[in-house]
Amino acid sequence: MLIEDLESQALAYHADPQPGKIAISITKPLNTQKALSLAYSPGVAVPAKEIAADPSKAYKYTAKGNLVGIITNGSAVLGLGNIGPLASKPVMEGKAALFKMFAGIDAIDIEIEADCPKDFIETVVRIAPTFGGINLEDIASPHCFEIEQALIKRLNIPVIHDDQHGTAITVAAGLQNALELQGKTLSQAKITCVGAGAAGIAILQLLVLLGAPKDNILLVDQQGIIHKDDPPLHAYSHQFAAQTSARTLAEAVAEADVFIGVATANLLTPQMLKTMAPNPIVFALSNPNSEIDPKLAYTTREDLILATGRSDYPNQVNNALVFPFLFRGALDVRATRINDEMKIAAVQALIKLTKDPVPQEVLNAYEEQELAFGVNYILPKIIDPRLKPVLSSAISQAAIQSGVAQKNL
Amino acid sequence: MLIEDLESQALAYHADPQPGKIAISITKPLNTQKALSLAYSPGVAVPAKEIAADPSKAYKYTAKGNLVGIITNGSAVLGLGNIGPLASKPVMEGKAALFKMFAGIDAIDIEIEADCPKDFIETVVRIAPTFGGINLEDIASPHCFEIEQALIKRLNIPVIHDDQHGTAITVAAGLQNALELQGKTLSQAKITCVGAGAAGIAILQLLVLLGAPKDNILLVDQQGIIHKDDPPLHAYSHQFAAQTSARTLAEAVAEADVFIGVATANLLTPQMLKTMAPNPIVFALSNPNSEIDPKLAYTTREDLILATGRSDYPNQVNNALVFPFLFRGALDVRATRINDEMKIAAVQALIKLTKDPVPQEVLNAYEEQELAFGVNYILPKIIDPRLKPVLSSAISQAAIQSGVAQKNL
Repeated sequence: MLIEDLESQALAYHADPQPGKIAISITKPLNTQKALSLAYSPGVAVPAKEIAADPSKAYKYTAKGNLVGIITNGSAVLGLGNIGPLASKPVMEGKAALFKMFAGIDAIDIEIEADCPKDFIETVVRIAPTFGGINLEDIASPHCFEIEQALIKRLNIPVIHDDQHGTAITVAAGLQNALELQGKTLSQAKITCVGAGAAGIAILQLLVLLGAPKDNILLVDQQGIIHKDDPPLHAYSHQFAAQTSARTLAEAVAEADVFIGVATANLLTPQMLKTMAPNPIVFALSNPNSEIDPKLAYTTREDLILATGRSDYPNQVNNALVFPFLFRGALDVRATRINDEMKIAAVQALIKLTKDPVPQEVLNAYEEQELAFGVNYILPKIIDPRLKPVLSSAISQAAIQSGVAQKNL
Repeated sequence: MLIEDLESQALAYHADPQPGKIAISITKPLNTQKALSLAYSPGVAVPAKEIAADPSKAYKYTAKGNLVGIITNGSAVLGLGNIGPLASKPVMEGKAALFKMFAGIDAIDIEIEADCPKDFIETVVRIAPTFGGINLEDIASPHCFEIEQALIKRLNIPVIHDDQHGTAITVAAGLQNALELQGKTLSQAKITCVGAGAAGIAILQLLVLLGAPKDNILLVDQQGIIHKDDPPLHAYSHQFAAQTSARTLAEAVAEADVFIGVATANLLTPQMLKTMAPNPIVFALSNPNSEIDPKLAYTTREDLILATGRSDYPNQVNNALVFPFLFRGALDVRATRINDEMKIAAVQALIKLTKDPVPQEVLNAYEEQELAFGVNYILPKIIDPRLKPVLSSAISQAAIQSGVAQKNL
């Protein structure tokens, strides 16, 4: 699609026939006097009293248990940066639509005008009785870490910052599949991550949890390799500070087995790519333009496995593979949080699903591509109907086994 | 319906086949790769940038303009009192369902845990970018006044506390119709209002605005007539403090033309009712049991016009006659507030509608009742299909004429 076409079509899509993409619907009959007397006064007093006596009954008599708040301050929206809460609304409504379509979850966007993390946190804590779970979205680093940690601590419903963990889980699954295909292992691969924001730090944390030694990791920001000798910018990135004589991006990439880019377009040059180890893996995830143009990357290294955020190339890394099911799995067993065990279960389920035969309806939709575990298929497609049952149940089981589930499946 | 039947049916209604009464639905196609690329990344960046450049475009490209937040702290829920935010959720979801059914408005409930008005106000201000309007609900007096006034001042979207104004508008319309039928006028009628909470004070304020002299009004709370010589409890009720030798409820009711009860069941005794002026008017609005049992009232005074909150007697005062259309009218012209002119337009439209011939479908639904302007029909029925077009357009027009509309119809 030409850019001009995309722009006019995207505006028309959002404006017509009515503004926006989501609405409220009524799930019970309401067209008789009797139905009204049950749904509202006087009948509604009965479930209200039940919940007042036993708060857990809110899950039985209200929409809370299937309702996720998609909450943002609009401080790091897509590639657009800090555009503020109001302008982020189309993105948040889009996320709500994805939640519904992929996982049957009712999600509503809440845009918060807050100048500091404290105000944001207090606001979310106060409105939390409304929701069964909270998906933090597009909040700038490093505030996103402080906000997520505070909310997890203060609330007894699942809270997750999707830009961190949805991305991290998807990358971790795709990367482990790619490592296997290239004959490498997470415990030995040299990993360079460019971009020390929400996604970069969460990806590295999850990879360490999965067995990647910190000593094999270099984290690079706009100033170069984050280095133990430098004064810490903040603890979140400094935990990955390296003791090395290398300083530049080019030095960080040389001999690396894995390049993970969650930064900006075109910073990985063909010259740098040539210096990577044999059978390299590149996750170039900047959107809409990758850290290296896919065509250029493939012509530079034939032994490459490449993943991007783009849907027009193989190996699209899309956190829609994860976030709908992370919440589906958590809500189904009324988990009080989304813990590491659940994230790891999601990674493992995604890895396994990629290796299973692909359903015919997915094959039909991607006629031009070969969809079988291999260098051009390291992650399932987002339209794969197995994602919901397989990931959700794996995540629910992990919640039960790790003791954070409040009910059984 | 027996009370036990109501209780079990209300619980079953709320629990099955799925919990609650509302859900999120997707309003645009989303089942192709192309639709996904318009609804979410990369297409969604286009409307996001448009809104960043011109905030008013949020009304063009998002659901904001038709989205009302139903916001409560659960401090004065129905007749249940301060049951807190979580237990109020079924009531708020019921309200959301009514908004959708009667006026096509998407409304979502937000339950806020806040200990003081300041925290509540700050929370609503911060989440306000989300909404096109805010319906405050079931907030206890006197905090409700402070909260509503602060939010109206700080936000440029319609904010209204329905327990005050939805009730006041409905009562004002029904009362003026009743006065006409009894050969009385608002400027001369002696009015006693029992209950000095949100509804009582808002009703009296609106009646004064419509021409009732303050000197003809007595406001009664649990301590008796609110009196100029007493130390003011707060300014909201003290504005109606009277200079009179009368002190008790019985004294306040004697010779009154109008009794308005927004208090508790059975406080108006037959003996008191007998002392009212000829052709009295009684609005006994306590729910589920009125300030006087309707049967008892009718046998005590044959010259009575009686209105209650009950659907099983004539003259049901139900603020669902008003709130859906107050917002419909305001949202349709993107009003920055709901002002007195719009409230008065709603009163006048309701008065007139009651006098017009009733549509056949409403007559069919109430076969046992005679539905024509008269002592048993002083307000339209809530199923009347004319309410939406007639009230909404009257309210929109008043918004335009009073200069608070940001667009034309």
